[in-house]
Amino acid sequence: MEEQAPKFAVILSGCGVFDGSEIHEAVCTMLAIEQSGCTYQCFAPNTWQARTIDHFTGHAVAIAGDEDNRNVLAESARIARGNVKDIAEFKAKDYDAIVFPGGFGAALNWSDFAVKGAECDVNVEIRRALEESYKEGIVIGAMCIAPVVVAKVLGKEGIHLTIGNDKKVAAGLAKMGAVAEEKRATEVCVDAEHKIVTTPCYMLATSLPEIYDATRNLVDEMLELMDY
Amino acid sequence: MEEQAPKFAVILSGCGVFDGSEIHEAVCTMLAIEQSGCTYQCFAPNTWQARTIDHFTGHAVAIAGDEDNRNVLAESARIARGNVKDIAEFKAKDYDAIVFPGGFGAALNWSDFAVKGAECDVNVEIRRALEESYKEGIVIGAMCIAPVVVAKVLGKEGIHLTIGNDKKVAAGLAKMGAVAEEKRATEVCVDAEHKIVTTPCYMLATSLPEIYDATRNLVDEMLELMDY
Repeated sequence: MEEQAPKFAVILSGCGVFDGSEIHEAVCTMLAIEQSGCTYQCFAPNTWQARTIDHFTGHAVAIAGDEDNRNVLAESARIARGNVKDIAEFKAKDYDAIVFPGGFGAALNWSDFAVKGAECDVNVEIRRALEESYKEGIVIGAMCIAPVVVAKVLGKEGIHLTIGNDKKVAAGLAKMGAVAEEKRATEVCVDAEHKIVTTPCYMLATSLPEIYDATRNLVDEMLELMDY
Repeated sequence: MEEQAPKFAVILSGCGVFDGSEIHEAVCTMLAIEQSGCTYQCFAPNTWQARTIDHFTGHAVAIAGDEDNRNVLAESARIARGNVKDIAEFKAKDYDAIVFPGGFGAALNWSDFAVKGAECDVNVEIRRALEESYKEGIVIGAMCIAPVVVAKVLGKEGIHLTIGNDKKVAAGLAKMGAVAEEKRATEVCVDAEHKIVTTPCYMLATSLPEIYDATRNLVDEMLELMDY
């Protein structure tokens, strides 16, 4: 029984909503996975952050190329209590699911969506992880702004996603070939055909209990697609 | 009804288990407070970290005095999504409770317990916040290693605390005048006389659901002491 529990890969983009992974979303996702009796392994790209934001003042204190800029893998390790692997080591066949918490790191470090919108580039290892996961048929989850990266890589498949009710981001998703569905903060968009599950979280949520509920709902729907 | 919900001050010491606040403990504490229908405000000292640890390698990358060392308030803001105040602004009479999540920042940034043990000094604003909270009679909560700071400031009152079952730290608590009670990961030590509630969390816990349960139990017992 224990051995059959689904294994999740949780992909991080740093540590902090303005330049990395949204911490509440990442922690609640990991909590929901374990509360469901499943296990997880964290991964992150071993790359420099696009920028480092002082989360107290909101100002950028370093950008790519600066000596005091931060490394995505090292910062992600804060959320993972040190237990994080370079995403270059990720193999889809070793997991039943892959999940992408939100935070602006999705649009800064996994991709440059924050700068280029629908014309963005995606980090080569994030792209590979997504393409391999899709090909292998494992369930893909994403929350908050993270679905834009899924859309950029897999949009041409005609996938359905939600990023809440943001019209501008939805237009970007459409340009990538994806169909944006409006959902409320804790609701989940399930694309059963492509095995992709998404939820708005802090695109719309205003409290931590909403993030707890949203990530529980997301993980529940992901497990449903695994017939678990 | 809404107006009467207890208000918690959540005190942070940075962002990451090895040099700041333990992220899972901090997030689960904030979640437990809101799930109980209460509100919180985060605070942190506006001071430099004793050291900055690369959480991937486990090595120190900066120490106090280095230009690229980090500020406790700015790092704490990552957990608080920017909504954190300088603890110099904390007034005990504005809150019903004050709670200290764990993480090595308690022994590095709130105090120098990591270096000096029972002979440690405590950050002047952390000391004031604790003394003022005790005098004002609001409920004090602490988890993981954070109780050592409570013991250093209030130990002479003969308070009871838990830091799990660590004999060495318990000996340190005894030197400060506090009585250490052995508890399991999610159990809570309630000192009703002094209105102090503590729980071991990651002193003993090995999973996030245990941290969720421990912080729920902690907040429940704190509310019990407020007759809420």
